[in-house]
Amino acid sequence: MTAVELIERKRDGGTLTGNEIRWLIAEYTAGTIPDYQMSAMLMAVFIRGLNGEELTVWTESMLTSGEVLELSAIPGRKVDKHSTGGVGDKISIPLAPMVGACGVKIPMMSGRGLGHTGGTLDKLETIPGFRTSFTAGEFATLLAAHGVVLGGQSEHLVPADRKLYALRDATGTVPAIPLIASSIMSKKLAEDLDGLVLDVKVGRGAFMEEVEQARRLAETMVEIGDLRGTKVIALLTNMNQPLGREVGNASEIRESIDTLHGEGPEDITRLTYALGAEMLVMGDVATSVDEARAMLEEAVSSGRAFDKFKEITLAQGGDTAVLDNPDLLPKATNEELVTAPISGWVKRCDALAVGVGAMRLGAGRQRKEDDIDPAVGVTVEAKIGDRVEQGDVLGRIRWNDSYAYGVAAPLLTDAWEISDSPVPPSQLIIERIGAYV
Amino acid sequence: MTAVELIERKRDGGTLTGNEIRWLIAEYTAGTIPDYQMSAMLMAVFIRGLNGEELTVWTESMLTSGEVLELSAIPGRKVDKHSTGGVGDKISIPLAPMVGACGVKIPMMSGRGLGHTGGTLDKLETIPGFRTSFTAGEFATLLAAHGVVLGGQSEHLVPADRKLYALRDATGTVPAIPLIASSIMSKKLAEDLDGLVLDVKVGRGAFMEEVEQARRLAETMVEIGDLRGTKVIALLTNMNQPLGREVGNASEIRESIDTLHGEGPEDITRLTYALGAEMLVMGDVATSVDEARAMLEEAVSSGRAFDKFKEITLAQGGDTAVLDNPDLLPKATNEELVTAPISGWVKRCDALAVGVGAMRLGAGRQRKEDDIDPAVGVTVEAKIGDRVEQGDVLGRIRWNDSYAYGVAAPLLTDAWEISDSPVPPSQLIIERIGAYV
Repeated sequence: MTAVELIERKRDGGTLTGNEIRWLIAEYTAGTIPDYQMSAMLMAVFIRGLNGEELTVWTESMLTSGEVLELSAIPGRKVDKHSTGGVGDKISIPLAPMVGACGVKIPMMSGRGLGHTGGTLDKLETIPGFRTSFTAGEFATLLAAHGVVLGGQSEHLVPADRKLYALRDATGTVPAIPLIASSIMSKKLAEDLDGLVLDVKVGRGAFMEEVEQARRLAETMVEIGDLRGTKVIALLTNMNQPLGREVGNASEIRESIDTLHGEGPEDITRLTYALGAEMLVMGDVATSVDEARAMLEEAVSSGRAFDKFKEITLAQGGDTAVLDNPDLLPKATNEELVTAPISGWVKRCDALAVGVGAMRLGAGRQRKEDDIDPAVGVTVEAKIGDRVEQGDVLGRIRWNDSYAYGVAAPLLTDAWEISDSPVPPSQLIIERIGAYV
Repeated sequence: MTAVELIERKRDGGTLTGNEIRWLIAEYTAGTIPDYQMSAMLMAVFIRGLNGEELTVWTESMLTSGEVLELSAIPGRKVDKHSTGGVGDKISIPLAPMVGACGVKIPMMSGRGLGHTGGTLDKLETIPGFRTSFTAGEFATLLAAHGVVLGGQSEHLVPADRKLYALRDATGTVPAIPLIASSIMSKKLAEDLDGLVLDVKVGRGAFMEEVEQARRLAETMVEIGDLRGTKVIALLTNMNQPLGREVGNASEIRESIDTLHGEGPEDITRLTYALGAEMLVMGDVATSVDEARAMLEEAVSSGRAFDKFKEITLAQGGDTAVLDNPDLLPKATNEELVTAPISGWVKRCDALAVGVGAMRLGAGRQRKEDDIDPAVGVTVEAKIGDRVEQGDVLGRIRWNDSYAYGVAAPLLTDAWEISDSPVPPSQLIIERIGAYV
């Protein structure tokens, strides 16, 4: 078997066997197959696709390319949530403590922000002292003791994905459904999960702009889970406008705390409950989504969800004082307002424009190496369907660097569009995919 | 402009502009665009193709990636022939002196054998002292003095092709018509030609097994010539069985000498005259193919063609004694016969099997680095359509190394198939493509 033979077969639309895919991924991870051969293969896969069987082996081969968590000694079901990435998407932060407070184990591994999408790790690290990097042993100990870990992905987990993702990024082979699905699923399955809830974003601020594409991605990931024997449910959710009101690292922690107190924005609260309810059912602590939702509401109203967040923060080295007093979190020095040029109804509140604008302010990274400014960001005061009068505040631009503000301001000013006729609010949860019960 | 943007566009079936292609090839040749990006691009080009305009710029960009010959100071038309490669294809060796003897200038640059196909340079170098490597200055001086040069391609000519070909070979992107056409045409156009005759091989021993594919390749190359203002004619010729009787380096020189004396095998003689006639018309020394053919016959019968070969050999440092006495050329120590198992008619005389068998004997190279044995090879005694009696000799295996013989023998024994009913001889020249007048 040679790499060229496999490339030629895929190039011509053929199928690779399980052994061939295992060999390919193992040799690439080991460095025996060079980048230039793998990039030709990735382009062939991009254009020709992978069938269900190929995809499952591809994902498995990535999964077993490195360390895999072994959490079976810890009692209880382990469930996680993964989002394909959006603007203002801080859902993991209120979700994990809420679900953890109801008794499901959450071995969560999140990522950092890149481009217009934010990252859970960056947000958590605005809490002074908050650690997100652990050895496999520390991770398991934290999970056993507190039921929830909010960590980053270890270097040893799925090295094939790290290598492949960097290559895809440089060779125009990122947005292919089999490659996205195997990348996400290999990392999540390496967490030794019993269940996984996927939040597949659709729209302007998402990786997938069309529902049809997002549905195919969701179905593909659910299918990989099925073939592996892991429960997977996907919600397709709207990412045309930012989620919640806050886009920025420290401010999203503030909004997460509000949500844990039951005072979060309506969309954040609704989506957190919807995803959390799936996790409680998967985690076998509730028998129905309705029962699960009532449990989550009780965890919030009783203060147990917030207390769980404090417990996790303390366990991960974070300063809980900022949770009790979010005003201690970093704040930007300057604020400029975006106001409504006419009276009417908000027709567009562009997640991509707000995401890119916030990134330009310093809230996100253009390149992986970039530093972020935890204090800056955008507050979204008017969302799609809202009635506004001329001069009303649509958004607040919170900035520190005047050059960055100069670049971001035009993008952010153009992010809103006002219509002179009423606009219906947009549908947050579009579709639920998967059926494991 | 970034490489990723261009890769993405071609991946999705889009078109690249002239400036984009020029940038891509220049930056790749310079090493700024890495192999892993170029291989993704090559796979996208392989699957999506290049349109005529893209292909012309692609070829031009390769052509101008290095040195280009400047031969305009030398009077007379410069014409060359290129074959896409076959088994027993020694046509260049009798052709160049014949055409040269009629007054057309031939700045010929040939290659070495790889895989089952032989190389003109390897064959010529079985003549003791024969040099094929020249500086641009030496090359022009030889051409001016003798009208014909039988050289190799300089390192400085079309470096983009050398780099791209090595990458294509390692990434399953060799057999794409635009990539083959641009590779051939960039190298030939770098010879500063007025005209080019292409011998596009079709069949078992050729790169293209189907006439339809070969025709598309020929048409593509003729089109590149047209757009560049260079006269190009292509003959599609049969490569199901070896050309002539000899497959092997020294023995093909012997057969070439026979042909220059008017005593070559019928197919070699016919194809040499057909290609040569096109070259004389292109070279403006004949007004029709019939007139040209008579001139070639006269050059052979008068001995001027053979004398020209001696002149070239002497000029390039070769020992002309072997031309007068070909028995001085290296000969293999051992000979084994392949005989007809039954009486009948030869139905198959497999060029690929004979080519691979000869390579295994040591006449060719599996890898570029391999050495060749000039003495070994195969003599084809029976060709398609020939009547044979049981026990008649079909082929002679001339070998030196017993291990190599052991590997080659089964391939060569299986190369012939005898039918019990008559088989028509195969058609040598299938089609002529192009019209420059």
